[in-house]
Amino acid sequence: MTHGAPVWRDVEITAVRELLAQLRDVENGPGGWEDRRTGMDAFGAAAKLPDGLAVESVDIAGLEAELLTPAGAAPNRALLYLHGGGYCVGSPRSHRPLAARLASAIGCPALVPHYRLAPEHRFPAAVDDAVKAYRHLLGEGVEPGRIIIAGDSAGGGLTIATAIAIRDSGLPQPAGLFAISPWANLAQTGAAYAAVLHDPMLTREGLQDMADAYLQGEGPGHPLASPALADLHDLPPMLIHAGSQEILASDATLLAERAGLAGVEVRVEIWPEMIHVWHAFAEWLGAGRRAIEEAGVWARGKLA
Amino acid sequence: MTHGAPVWRDVEITAVRELLAQLRDVENGPGGWEDRRTGMDAFGAAAKLPDGLAVESVDIAGLEAELLTPAGAAPNRALLYLHGGGYCVGSPRSHRPLAARLASAIGCPALVPHYRLAPEHRFPAAVDDAVKAYRHLLGEGVEPGRIIIAGDSAGGGLTIATAIAIRDSGLPQPAGLFAISPWANLAQTGAAYAAVLHDPMLTREGLQDMADAYLQGEGPGHPLASPALADLHDLPPMLIHAGSQEILASDATLLAERAGLAGVEVRVEIWPEMIHVWHAFAEWLGAGRRAIEEAGVWARGKLA
Repeated sequence: MTHGAPVWRDVEITAVRELLAQLRDVENGPGGWEDRRTGMDAFGAAAKLPDGLAVESVDIAGLEAELLTPAGAAPNRALLYLHGGGYCVGSPRSHRPLAARLASAIGCPALVPHYRLAPEHRFPAAVDDAVKAYRHLLGEGVEPGRIIIAGDSAGGGLTIATAIAIRDSGLPQPAGLFAISPWANLAQTGAAYAAVLHDPMLTREGLQDMADAYLQGEGPGHPLASPALADLHDLPPMLIHAGSQEILASDATLLAERAGLAGVEVRVEIWPEMIHVWHAFAEWLGAGRRAIEEAGVWARGKLA
Repeated sequence: MTHGAPVWRDVEITAVRELLAQLRDVENGPGGWEDRRTGMDAFGAAAKLPDGLAVESVDIAGLEAELLTPAGAAPNRALLYLHGGGYCVGSPRSHRPLAARLASAIGCPALVPHYRLAPEHRFPAAVDDAVKAYRHLLGEGVEPGRIIIAGDSAGGGLTIATAIAIRDSGLPQPAGLFAISPWANLAQTGAAYAAVLHDPMLTREGLQDMADAYLQGEGPGHPLASPALADLHDLPPMLIHAGSQEILASDATLLAERAGLAGVEVRVEIWPEMIHVWHAFAEWLGAGRRAIEEAGVWARGKLA
């Protein structure tokens, strides 16, 4: 327990770590990718959804997606949410509670594409599908200045990669990017790998397995694979969250340094005691709820 | 001009760069430290002060200081403001407009010590005087949870160094630290030195001259000289601002990475187009006023 932290935070973190131990058994079990995907979907099914949320299936020319519409959402705005899971696991179902909470905080619907996963679909299939979902929103008449792209973990890296691909396609940029605990440097360098002794969610080996499954021979330095190493000029404003207890914390600060030096408006926050994508534990964790609320305030300030 | 930036920003930046050219002639002229100090004080005298500001001289057992009290300031709170100037120049007078604007934004008085300058007084005289000013506030009965320490450039590094010294003295920490364009790594490493091609305020050589004058043989890795390289555990929440057009931008992100990994609540922002300590040009620059206002909101959120 950190010096001066109130006792309730300790209790909350303990509860979350117990949840995590169960999740980890499922995710890292011997069953392979399919079992891990099933386990992550079960985690998503276990959390509450905001009251009044409408969930619809959308088919974007063969790309399956979910459209989550919170009660009272502004119809002419949109959140494009890119789920985490190391490019190998995760789905709109596993991340439905997190995407729905963030959409509620922003006050708009969320489109959550079921982008193609590795190892069945290698890099850059995920980026291609994310751009396809963005084009779909534009095609539906949503103004780019009324779109936020956000994602967690691999989905946080994918958020930045998608903005790079949007820029390089000549498409108009969205209003802002929100990256939660982004996996933005698949070369796995950075001080956090050595500094964080007890990451309860991630290991270097686990990340390397997923990087190998995703890249399948592409170098980790490719800008769409490791956007923290990319040229980031002309990207929209970025908000980046990371926890002090995750080995990806340095991905966040490297991404911020490079975005800032490329002339991008960037704000990065490191939250003490927090673990990888603590926002996903918002139901049990006040800091998760607060992080989502504050990101909502930021996003609303960027939307036209 | 950056893609998509409105024209008024360009006009403002042009005006500021013209001011800077004059300032630079004075600061970097052949006259030595005393002439540069006189020039910087003249810059401070040229800017407007907030309406109704009270300016008093304070003697803290031989340490001269200014107490700036904005109209309507809460008397039981305080900003300890540490001015910039590479540890060699600058004074309460040169930074009176900036400290007064920040104090107004927070809604409290500012104490601005005239800490001893190099080369006459070598490291760590500045840190000792800053801690002395903090002890003075505590002695006046101001609760530590109602104090913010802030500073710009060398004063931004000094802000963090002072918090380290406070921690190591066993004194209670203030509520928060706000570092504007901090010079936090006197070893002068970081990607910004190569990435920023046209810093209108700083050069590596100019910084090295000031580091040499301050350190006088002490290594730049000393934690109180380069707090971005220090152990930062148990420090209070930090807000760090840097501009995309300054060679110290990487000091900000390195400081944030290391503070975050040490468990400190930290938020760093890099502002596009902005130069070293653009807050000092608030009278002419909307982004300077906005940066000070946003820092005021952050600080008020931390104060008890």
